[in-house]
Amino acid sequence: MAGTDLTQPTMRGGPAIILVAPQLGENIGMAARAMLNCGLTDLRLVKPRDGWPNDDAVAASADASDVIDNTRVYQTTRDAIADLELLFATTARPRDMVKRVVTPRRAAEELHSFVGQGGRAGILFGKEAKGLINDDVALADAVLSVPLNPRFSSLNLAQAVFAVGYEWYQYHDQTPATETATPKYTRPGTKQEMIYLFEHLESELDDSGFLRVEEKRPTMVRSFRNMLGRANLTEQEIRTFRGIITSLVGKRKRR
Amino acid sequence: MAGTDLTQPTMRGGPAIILVAPQLGENIGMAARAMLNCGLTDLRLVKPRDGWPNDDAVAASADASDVIDNTRVYQTTRDAIADLELLFATTARPRDMVKRVVTPRRAAEELHSFVGQGGRAGILFGKEAKGLINDDVALADAVLSVPLNPRFSSLNLAQAVFAVGYEWYQYHDQTPATETATPKYTRPGTKQEMIYLFEHLESELDDSGFLRVEEKRPTMVRSFRNMLGRANLTEQEIRTFRGIITSLVGKRKRR
Repeated sequence: MAGTDLTQPTMRGGPAIILVAPQLGENIGMAARAMLNCGLTDLRLVKPRDGWPNDDAVAASADASDVIDNTRVYQTTRDAIADLELLFATTARPRDMVKRVVTPRRAAEELHSFVGQGGRAGILFGKEAKGLINDDVALADAVLSVPLNPRFSSLNLAQAVFAVGYEWYQYHDQTPATETATPKYTRPGTKQEMIYLFEHLESELDDSGFLRVEEKRPTMVRSFRNMLGRANLTEQEIRTFRGIITSLVGKRKRR
Repeated sequence: MAGTDLTQPTMRGGPAIILVAPQLGENIGMAARAMLNCGLTDLRLVKPRDGWPNDDAVAASADASDVIDNTRVYQTTRDAIADLELLFATTARPRDMVKRVVTPRRAAEELHSFVGQGGRAGILFGKEAKGLINDDVALADAVLSVPLNPRFSSLNLAQAVFAVGYEWYQYHDQTPATETATPKYTRPGTKQEMIYLFEHLESELDDSGFLRVEEKRPTMVRSFRNMLGRANLTEQEIRTFRGIITSLVGKRKRR
């Protein structure tokens, strides 16, 4: 998706994303990009296998320097989470631990509530393929598990970060679920303009003989009107459409 | 996230994912993996730059062979969408086109409703960095735009596919937003068991002298009871806790 708008302020204050023992720099970079897509900037790494800073991470981050340049590195998980008050661990639903399990959507709700009251929160992610060790899961307040196809639920690390960040961002985003984008130079057509269009079309179709069967005329007229009405034409499109009618009529009349 | 469960059936019948002129095989593979994570299997490619089949795609797909093996290749977008009845185009909000714009969540709702009635639907994704051309957007019923950090909204191709697939999957997923996972060998403690635990602790604390200040006793007792109550102990954990009390008392009594 394109559309970066540099006039908007960068968001701050979201939960920390803590990657425990990540292996590939590329995955760290893609996770950083996913974080910034979602307005998250606090990235913490516990013992990254290939060290830090890491050129592969920078290359894969698509210039997410707000995240990459401020990434902190720790030797243990307990050091990385020491300042936090609320911690989620992303992993599959635990089988031999008594632990609250939440969806990403619910986690976003709880994180917004907690951070909104000034709390410091974070989310733990385990290494590629292996995930978190149980001792790290036991440090968390709850498990965050992404509901996915049970036959194929192994998520790429950056996708797991994105799932959580996406819900964090959507939770307070104000975009209408559905709306019609209209260029600035036009506006929705009025009912009056639509009725003039209908009458223009019907008058020309009377003239051309298309509506000659009198008993079918009301049904056909309603059908055109419904069909064109569904298109939600703008004022400019109504004018374009009337131009099309005039042009087609001109062709017939010239013949 | 680990946890693949091969006893579950693979889901079928979701919308087609159509990648127009994708460049890197790795991105196609990661998109295929994201699709299968979300139960989507109908992948269509329009003029993939590096041809098809593609080894990089297979390597990046993490064995998403249900998707990779059934991928179809087309020479034009119109060929790839010919059989579809509802089409979304993923792109930034259009500036010079009159087009309905929906969020991924709303698209999921509309797709489930449409597919649930037997309709065939698809979602167009443009090439990396460049996105869809306007002529392809014009073929779609609506634009699907992912609300993201306006200062950094450029999504990786596989992440864009995942955002849409994620919402598709979540829409009908039945996972409770929050619940406590409990191993099969235990169950939540009853109030009776908790009261026995409280009384055990209070009796030993009377004995050890911790509750010797009579006027503070009721407040302190309520405080323990609230503290332990918040932990929602299982029957097994209550027994463990009583064992801990007995053990600590034993140490003191031996001294």
